[in-house]
Amino acid sequence: MSTAIRSIKSLAPLLDRVLVQRIKAETKTASGIFLPESSVKELNEGKVLAVGPGALDKKGQRLPMGVRIGDRVLIPQFGGSPVKVGEEEFHLFRDSEILAKINE
Amino acid sequence: MSTAIRSIKSLAPLLDRVLVQRIKAETKTASGIFLPESSVKELNEGKVLAVGPGALDKKGQRLPMGVRIGDRVLIPQFGGSPVKVGEEEFHLFRDSEILAKINE
Amino acid sequence: MSTAIRSIKSLAPLLDRVLVQRIKAETKTASGIFLPESSVKELNEGKVLAVGPGALDKKGQRLPMGVRIGDRVLIPQFGGSPVKVGEEEFHLFRDSEILAKINE
Amino acid sequence: MSTAIRSIKSLAPLLDRVLVQRIKAETKTASGIFLPESSVKELNEGKVLAVGPGALDKKGQRLPMGVRIGDRVLIPQFGGSPVKVGEEEFHLFRDSEILAKINE
Amino acid sequence: MSTAIRSIKSLAPLLDRVLVQRIKAETKTASGIFLPESSVKELNEGKVLAVGPGALDKKGQRLPMGVRIGDRVLIPQFGGSPVKVGEEEFHLFRDSEILAKINE
Amino acid sequence: MSTAIRSIKSLAPLLDRVLVQRIKAETKTASGIFLPESSVKELNEGKVLAVGPGALDKKGQRLPMGVRIGDRVLIPQFGGSPVKVGEEEFHLFRDSEILAKINE
Amino acid sequence: MSTAIRSIKSLAPLLDRVLVQRIKAETKTASGIFLPESSVKELNEGKVLAVGPGALDKKGQRLPMGVRIGDRVLIPQFGGSPVKVGEEEFHLFRDSEILAKINE
Repeated sequence: MSTAIRSIKSLAPLLDRVLVQRIKAETKTASGIFLPESSVKELNEGKVLAVGPGALDKKGQRLPMGVRIGDRVLIPQFGGSPVKVGEEEFHLFRDSEILAKINE
Repeated sequence: MSTAIRSIKSLAPLLDRVLVQRIKAETKTASGIFLPESSVKELNEGKVLAVGPGALDKKGQRLPMGVRIGDRVLIPQFGGSPVKVGEEEFHLFRDSEILAKINE
Repeated sequence: MSTAIRSIKSLAPLLDRVLVQRIKAETKTASGIFLPESSVKELNEGKVLAVGPGALDKKGQRLPMGVRIGDRVLIPQFGGSPVKVGEEEFHLFRDSEILAKINE
Repeated sequence: MSTAIRSIKSLAPLLDRVLVQRIKAETKTASGIFLPESSVKELNEGKVLAVGPGALDKKGQRLPMGVRIGDRVLIPQFGGSPVKVGEEEFHLFRDSEILAKINE
Repeated sequence: MSTAIRSIKSLAPLLDRVLVQRIKAETKTASGIFLPESSVKELNEGKVLAVGPGALDKKGQRLPMGVRIGDRVLIPQFGGSPVKVGEEEFHLFRDSEILAKINE
Repeated sequence: MSTAIRSIKSLAPLLDRVLVQRIKAETKTASGIFLPESSVKELNEGKVLAVGPGALDKKGQRLPMGVRIGDRVLIPQFGGSPVKVGEEEFHLFRDSEILAKINE
Repeated sequence: MSTAIRSIKSLAPLLDRVLVQRIKAETKTASGIFLPESSVKELNEGKVLAVGPGALDKKGQRLPMGVRIGDRVLIPQFGGSPVKVGEEEFHLFRDSEILAKINE
């Protein structure tokens, strides 16, 4: 999805949405040889850039979010809404779609 | 959807619906050269023109809305009901379909 | 749906149903020229003729209706049950299907 | 559905079911000319012959029914369970499927 | 479904299930002439042989059943689980699938 | 599903799952003649070998189970998860999928 | 799903997710003869490496998990999200998808 947003920092996710920046796979080997683009696999990892205030329960109360800004997370293979700011692509996921945190 | 509405300001969304006007993409480059229409991408951004009173919970209470009149928002790529007033097109989304606010 | 109803005023919608009469598009231009029928677009606007008492919540209480008799409303492009009385066609919608009120 | 029922009066609908007898369309014109069968449209109108005690809510309480024996009603174009008693056909609808009452 | 059950009386339905024996259509006319098998329609009527204790609500309480042993009932055209005991076939329905009682 | 389990007794079903061993159909007639394998029908009967602690309701309380270890039960024709231990096959069903108890 | 995770121990499942390592089938027979790869069946067994804090009920309370770290479990034939760390593959399941514990 194209936008006219100047900085991704302006984006404030609503409800239980989480803004994630996918971590790029290494494009060269450990010994420094560049990999041809076709052999670079997309990684299912990302960094949390922003989180929404949480979904509403049936009484209008916010449900707590599972992740925080700065978390390194495992994201699902499918789903999520792509957001394009300039040349970079980001993703919005629902909090419950984030599979796991990566504590490294 | 065609209507006989004279002004979009007459439209009062019901329940948790949000009336959004899509922001138009620039049709010329920064240096002032006009882009051919085919290269102008539709933007997934809009401005909130009106909001409904909120959906009803199971006890008939209104649930709070996530966006307000004047908000700049990220809208989903699909969904929403188009509304045509004169030559202009607007969209009605459910509050929970709005992905994020844009604070710029 | 054909009926043997003599007057549409006899129809009392049940639960949260709303009886709507679609507003007809103008068949001549502002300057008085008649439009060929193929260029007359169907309008997604209607007038509320009757409203049901409201849907029941899980405790058997009526949920409030969003529209009232006489309201001018924006109706969805699809859905609703057509009702034919004589030569005229009307529509029954659920209250939550009505998109917006038109205050003009 | 064929049955060995002798009289439709023996049928006691369960839960929120409503037993409806469809009203037959006139087979001759106002001036007394008989219409060919192909031009007789099926009417979406019926008379309520029997009503169930109401559906159960989550606590085992009966929810009130919207129609009563003798009501003239607008029935949906599709749905309902046909019941054949002798040569006559009747229909069972859920109370919430009945569109409107006809007060004529 | 084949079983090694010796007597249908051994079968105790669970939750809100109802054990029904379909009533057989007459294979001869009122005047005593035997009908060819192809013209004998299957009837949607049955006799209740056993009923379960009722489904559980969200608090673990039993919801009341709508039919009792010995009831003559109208059964739906589709659905239900067939149970074969010896050469005879029976059906298990959920209580809410039984359309009506037949008081004859 | 293949496993490396040595004894089926080691298997402890979770939530409302029920471990069932299907009862084998007789492979010879009452008079002792062996039936060809193709004429031996699979039976929809089983013996309960183990039961889970029960599903959780919305407050985290266990819902009671309908069957107990040792029960002879009628199982549905489809569904259930097969579990293979050595050369033998067992099935896991949800408690609510078990159709009836067989008191013989 | 490829990741740049260095150690599977860094992965902390969210909500009611369970991280499982599938148990490998023996690739040689009891008498020590190696089996050709095509005859080695995949096993539906695994070891629990990590568990999430539990799903949230409608009031924001954690629901208890059915399995613990170190549990040997029976996993379903389909479903689950694969996670690749280096050359090894792991799976994330929802707690309610785990069929049974294996107490051996």
